[in-house]
Amino acid sequence: MSDLPQLSGEQVHELDRAHVFHSWSAQDLIDPLPIESAKGVRFTDYAGTEYLDFSSQLVNVNIGYQHPRLVAAIQEQAGRMATLAPGFANDMRSEAARMIAEKAPGDLEHVFFTNGGAEANENALRMARIHTGRHKILSAYRSYHGATAGSIALTGDPRRWASEPGMPGVVRYWGPYLYRSAFYATSEEEERDRALQHLRDTIAVEGPQTIAAIILETVVGTNGILVPPDGYLAGVREICDEHGIVMIADEVMAGFARCGEWFAIDHWGVTPDIITFAKGVNSGYVPIGGTIVSGAIRETFGPKPYPGGLTYQGHPLACASAVASMRIFEDEGVVEHSRRMGEEVIGPRLAEIEAKHPSVGEVRGLGTFWALELVKDPQTREPLVPYNASGEAAAPMGAFAAACKERGLWPFVHFNRTHVVPPCVIEEDDLRAGLDILDEALEVADGYVG
Amino acid sequence: MSDLPQLSGEQVHELDRAHVFHSWSAQDLIDPLPIESAKGVRFTDYAGTEYLDFSSQLVNVNIGYQHPRLVAAIQEQAGRMATLAPGFANDMRSEAARMIAEKAPGDLEHVFFTNGGAEANENALRMARIHTGRHKILSAYRSYHGATAGSIALTGDPRRWASEPGMPGVVRYWGPYLYRSAFYATSEEEERDRALQHLRDTIAVEGPQTIAAIILETVVGTNGILVPPDGYLAGVREICDEHGIVMIADEVMAGFARCGEWFAIDHWGVTPDIITFAKGVNSGYVPIGGTIVSGAIRETFGPKPYPGGLTYQGHPLACASAVASMRIFEDEGVVEHSRRMGEEVIGPRLAEIEAKHPSVGEVRGLGTFWALELVKDPQTREPLVPYNASGEAAAPMGAFAAACKERGLWPFVHFNRTHVVPPCVIEEDDLRAGLDILDEALEVADGYVG
Ligand SMILES: Cc1ncc(COP(=O)(O)O)c(C=O)c1O
Ligand SMILES: Cc1ncc(COP(=O)(O)O)c(C=O)c1O
Repeated sequence: MSDLPQLSGEQVHELDRAHVFHSWSAQDLIDPLPIESAKGVRFTDYAGTEYLDFSSQLVNVNIGYQHPRLVAAIQEQAGRMATLAPGFANDMRSEAARMIAEKAPGDLEHVFFTNGGAEANENALRMARIHTGRHKILSAYRSYHGATAGSIALTGDPRRWASEPGMPGVVRYWGPYLYRSAFYATSEEEERDRALQHLRDTIAVEGPQTIAAIILETVVGTNGILVPPDGYLAGVREICDEHGIVMIADEVMAGFARCGEWFAIDHWGVTPDIITFAKGVNSGYVPIGGTIVSGAIRETFGPKPYPGGLTYQGHPLACASAVASMRIFEDEGVVEHSRRMGEEVIGPRLAEIEAKHPSVGEVRGLGTFWALELVKDPQTREPLVPYNASGEAAAPMGAFAAACKERGLWPFVHFNRTHVVPPCVIEEDDLRAGLDILDEALEVADGYVG
Repeated sequence: MSDLPQLSGEQVHELDRAHVFHSWSAQDLIDPLPIESAKGVRFTDYAGTEYLDFSSQLVNVNIGYQHPRLVAAIQEQAGRMATLAPGFANDMRSEAARMIAEKAPGDLEHVFFTNGGAEANENALRMARIHTGRHKILSAYRSYHGATAGSIALTGDPRRWASEPGMPGVVRYWGPYLYRSAFYATSEEEERDRALQHLRDTIAVEGPQTIAAIILETVVGTNGILVPPDGYLAGVREICDEHGIVMIADEVMAGFARCGEWFAIDHWGVTPDIITFAKGVNSGYVPIGGTIVSGAIRETFGPKPYPGGLTYQGHPLACASAVASMRIFEDEGVVEHSRRMGEEVIGPRLAEIEAKHPSVGEVRGLGTFWALELVKDPQTREPLVPYNASGEAAAPMGAFAAACKERGLWPFVHFNRTHVVPPCVIEEDDLRAGLDILDEALEVADGYVG
């Protein structure tokens, strides 16, 4: 007899409303859709409506839903050893760390495991501060790094506002974003050079010897899929080296095949001092995340205790799922597939869509990580909805999303953008079908232009 | 073919040293023991040495290792639906929330899920600040609340030192602890009254209208298993009511049968405004934690968005394991068993041990949650090792721990204390056998007395 009850869709809904407190929302103004099942690149509600997932949940289900080998590995490990405290050594923890270190660039050879992305960034910042003996962290305005007190302080986007004043010591800078350049640049090269100069100037006025780390999303995720211009990350690396600043690459969303590389930063051949990861490492089948640290940082904490930890760190079940997921990625060529889908399918098709729809101001991305920037006016680039809009002000994006859902596509929508972020394993025909729906639904957005 | 490799003990050890960055330690000064298997109340290393677990890992394996029904539920749910984003409704999330709300006291009916204890406290403090519109949080010196920036700032013990200066707004107070009274009290009643007066005085000088919340561990865990005197928690409740302060009970360690109750606070019949939980809710088989909130706090976030969240919140696999674990607790009477073991076995046997060993200054606890305070001198109560001692200074505790391990018992050791915190399901004969070993090993501690 199973210990798991069978509930109807109504019961799921009713109990959710009665007892589940949801994130990032006004509890009375939401109506969460009960989902009954999920498989591959699709999930299904209790009415039997199936959705092609162009958002990978929160951009984490890189391997798709219910991958049979990954499910089998979790079931096997559950029967072997579900849990073990961080102080011991454990086979799955050792093997997961080995595989992650093998894939990570340069001398990033040691893994500090966490339960998710926020805790990964929390520990990255603690390591950087103690390693350098400095306090300030530079973080970009267009960024999200998690919702614990440290990670929300690192976050540049509006999600931090309600948690301010928060952890002190964070200084913000503007990153490269040619379409809405903070630097009046008109080419990728100019944007790169001016963004680096801005970073140098910010460091000069903050005092280089006060700065522990620069944290950035290698490719900015929720805040716009901002692919850095070639040479930008190498420039940041150079600035960090010059001043002894720790370079932290947050790859919680961009890593593990999302950008068509194991780590997004491989696209530019740069080695940061710390990479933080979560999501794609095991597609969230079991909560896990972590930081991968350089030899120098590991050395700092050779004789000196590292002052941080958490109960479920290096969790055997979570680590086993990461091991299996990385093996599946290898066997099935998921990284290469994601890259190829970006180059051969998504990029070209979105270029067509951009040319056709006046509401599409820009498309950009790589791998299975793309954004369409929707505008009221392609000339002025005025966003289709204002920055951080909600309620009525956000109605045009709501109407666009509804048009996608009516057609069986679950879109990712944020501010005035829709992101094309399906599971990285998506086959070409599903991808084309989804892009066709997007094409149709964008007519709704076009209706708001001019 | 399995995706999980078979490693030898040497390989596990070697890869751990090469690639795993461990928490709370100097990486060069540790040598993590590889554990091959675990079952019931015991785990076994690769040399075949079996340990009776008197620490429940990090006081989280309340149900014991590899409980067959809990393992089966995880395997079943892995095959159904491993992961789903927080924005949807999900059967296991709904049911876990329902069951937790059912067990929680008073009108604590809504559950905000997290991955672990630190994130639970992070969100509790954010809720309290926004609910009250106030900033300060009162937290006890003898406490641990987690290691993210907010939770480590709440923490009273030395683990926070290296993360200071941290999140502002935390004010610390002294809680009741008769054996080492901050108030020169000589009875439980006096300790209670003076601790409450101290809290009132602290609030007066901080300004009641500036204080969002008082957070406390219902029974302080790692910092000494400090059972509050009868009436203390009711007194805190009264003070909170008087000033509109949110009362947060951190039950990450004390909850879910550890104290012989579903929630430790039930022992005193008090209803806080928020309870935070993790560990015992599913014994850490899958990472999960959360906060349970009152009707009033839920109402605040009815029309107003709650500004926090995390990717793996309300994770279906984690929630399923919580559902199954609570059902097993019910069927097997784990809560009552824990209470009975405390009253009938641990309490009486530790009283004998206290009478016999000069190194045992005090024993205290309830359920399967007990501490022995080891001293150099029972008269002066000088601790066997200094506060926060490490290295040579901590040698007497190291020798005591080694004596336990030689005899097949894995003890919980912190500062000058050993805690008796076995899985809550431990049978009487195992418990007695472990206590007998403790009795023997304490002779080592006696050697340092005087
Ligand atoms: C780039 C980035 N960093 C960190 C996080 C936080 O991760 P988590 O939600 O697991 O705490 C996210 C989550 O979306 C993210 O996209
Ligand atoms: C009372 C208490 N609160 C919070 C925590 C933090 O929980 P976690 O390690 O899951 O972040 C702990 C962990 O030991 C704890 O004992």
